[in-house]
Amino acid sequence: MSERIEADYIIETATNLEKAAATMAGEQSSGTFTKVPGETPELIERAGARVEKLTVLDTVEKPSLPGAKPGTPIRQAKVTISWPLETIGLSVPHLSIVIGGNLFELGDFSGLKVDDIRLPESFLASGPGPGFGIEGTRRLSGVYDRPLIGTIIKPSVGFTPEQTADLAEELAQAGLDFIKDDELQAASPSCPFEARVDAVMDRLHRHADRVGTLPMFAFNLTGEVDDMLRRRDYVLKAGGSCVMMTLNAVGLSGFMAVSRQSPLPIHAHRAGWGALSRHPVLGWSFPAWSKLWRLAGADHIHVNGIDNKFCESNESVIRSARSCLEPLGKTKPCITMPVFSSGQTPRQVPQTYAGLGSRDLIHAAGGGILGHPGGPSEGVAEMRSAWDAQK
Amino acid sequence: MSERIEADYIIETATNLEKAAATMAGEQSSGTFTKVPGETPELIERAGARVEKLTVLDTVEKPSLPGAKPGTPIRQAKVTISWPLETIGLSVPHLSIVIGGNLFELGDFSGLKVDDIRLPESFLASGPGPGFGIEGTRRLSGVYDRPLIGTIIKPSVGFTPEQTADLAEELAQAGLDFIKDDELQAASPSCPFEARVDAVMDRLHRHADRVGTLPMFAFNLTGEVDDMLRRRDYVLKAGGSCVMMTLNAVGLSGFMAVSRQSPLPIHAHRAGWGALSRHPVLGWSFPAWSKLWRLAGADHIHVNGIDNKFCESNESVIRSARSCLEPLGKTKPCITMPVFSSGQTPRQVPQTYAGLGSRDLIHAAGGGILGHPGGPSEGVAEMRSAWDAQK
Repeated sequence: MSERIEADYIIETATNLEKAAATMAGEQSSGTFTKVPGETPELIERAGARVEKLTVLDTVEKPSLPGAKPGTPIRQAKVTISWPLETIGLSVPHLSIVIGGNLFELGDFSGLKVDDIRLPESFLASGPGPGFGIEGTRRLSGVYDRPLIGTIIKPSVGFTPEQTADLAEELAQAGLDFIKDDELQAASPSCPFEARVDAVMDRLHRHADRVGTLPMFAFNLTGEVDDMLRRRDYVLKAGGSCVMMTLNAVGLSGFMAVSRQSPLPIHAHRAGWGALSRHPVLGWSFPAWSKLWRLAGADHIHVNGIDNKFCESNESVIRSARSCLEPLGKTKPCITMPVFSSGQTPRQVPQTYAGLGSRDLIHAAGGGILGHPGGPSEGVAEMRSAWDAQK
Repeated sequence: MSERIEADYIIETATNLEKAAATMAGEQSSGTFTKVPGETPELIERAGARVEKLTVLDTVEKPSLPGAKPGTPIRQAKVTISWPLETIGLSVPHLSIVIGGNLFELGDFSGLKVDDIRLPESFLASGPGPGFGIEGTRRLSGVYDRPLIGTIIKPSVGFTPEQTADLAEELAQAGLDFIKDDELQAASPSCPFEARVDAVMDRLHRHADRVGTLPMFAFNLTGEVDDMLRRRDYVLKAGGSCVMMTLNAVGLSGFMAVSRQSPLPIHAHRAGWGALSRHPVLGWSFPAWSKLWRLAGADHIHVNGIDNKFCESNESVIRSARSCLEPLGKTKPCITMPVFSSGQTPRQVPQTYAGLGSRDLIHAAGGGILGHPGGPSEGVAEMRSAWDAQK
């Protein structure tokens, strides 16, 4: 276990850059705000985090975040910190705190964002990784050589199980490969989980009996661990082929309690992500954050979409999506299928393909398919032919 | 279940304020970016979120966050949205997404922060609440009528179990009521969890045999759910009286798998919180966010400290701490003991007491006690007498 974990940060500070980087390494390992007796040079050498690299970037006029110590110049820099595995142990949830703990609040910084992380091969043993990934998802859905065309049950909430099933059947007939609960729909008095699974799977199986393929339906398990495990098993017994969790609701420990040895692919929804990412120099970049979830077992993960209804740039969306297809390591690549979603229509297909350079994605359009003037069948057909046209 | 959940937000937008608030309600319930067939007036009336109140605040010159639609004036406002319980169900993890899901990313907004939430009595059945709280913590620690004086094992990482136990014994002899693992110390090859518990509890029990009181030691369980449950039971069998989790590592579902029917108080560490809170108009306010964790079962929760080493203002610290002592509801108050920590010394005692108006807190000083020139005993004695002096 002599390997080290590395994290890159974009920082902004009015203090000396070397000092600021050393503060980060100290705060996240053996240091505190004052010298304590046990912090010997030997202990720091063995257990301390280390500044590996420091690259000066721009100078900015005003601090990006309030509360930092004043001074000039205010400079941005890229800093790489490393930790020995011996003091972290093999735990994905705990790693998230080692990398992204108290740092965001340090008074030396007017900006701090985790930009990327690199995990040594031995740390990859700490998570299951995607149990299905691209290959398993294609096998279960019967869709090869093109993206899965997906949609979201809309209205997000308000339908009864029977109404949900009516729509699911209509969507299956329209040719969708993938259908999901909205992240706002979990288990509720107006649409109980088990009744929804029963109603939807009954219709989808009847559809499959007619046409030979069963669309993948991602049922939103989100809740407490025991409930999620029971619901996952319920979907399995009902012949379903996918389950979903909202990552920021359940957290890494809750997620891994469900993802470990999951008999069904896990569709990972990132709702709430904006709070962690929207500010340019606060929180986490998606490539860094999603590596934790990929190792934790996400088979599919949402990356927003080109020309989305949110505020994320296309460049950022593509960087996120591409990162999902880059191996985490040699022994365990943890390739997770990116899910493009949010205001999607066939118009975004060329740029999506050009940016990602792959057809290994789920392209989900909610309103774009359900609200299509010609009905869902035409919505799906247009998405399919837009993808067929990409060479 | 006709009661509704309410959330207050601080928003910033260049679009019409009524329209912006309606977009929030739509996005977080039955709406999407375009009209879909199933979204009938009856469904909206029954399942939709509702704008309850809108108060215009300041006009700002520049957008606080990038990516929003341009326009003038850019106004800030306070908006209250409500949801019917029927579509949410009784789930704390899921509620976090209903309130704080995709909203942070909406292009209509250059700022959006959850400011407070109000949970109806019937929703309070969804979480266990603190199993011990103030009363249970005082009973187990034997400390009444004054704050528990606490400290953190420092260096945070690098000590073996025996070195940790040496320090724990020294701290117990110094008179500390409460000792905790640093949030960076969970379970690692250099300090395995079980060996640490064995070594520390052996010394603390010997100390208790001598003086009659057992200091509370919060062992950091943070990891996957099965590991945390096994570790919690290990602490119980070893005669320990407290366990700790880092909230942002484990997440609400993981946390509740451990907090439900926990035989030991749960010490809730908020490391990582800065990413969700540091920007004035992005993410969550502590009173809103901590209500979820209080209902989820946090017995103690970190609130930073007066004149802390981080960038949070004293006003914000006091608002956070006071909110922990305000009941969530009549049937289930969910009072959680605030933990003041970060660069604390006796100097901060008067302002802490004046601000909180209570002695129901844990006042933790790591470096302030361990790095005290006269040694930990003098550090503790000074903290105790500073509190005794408050009338």
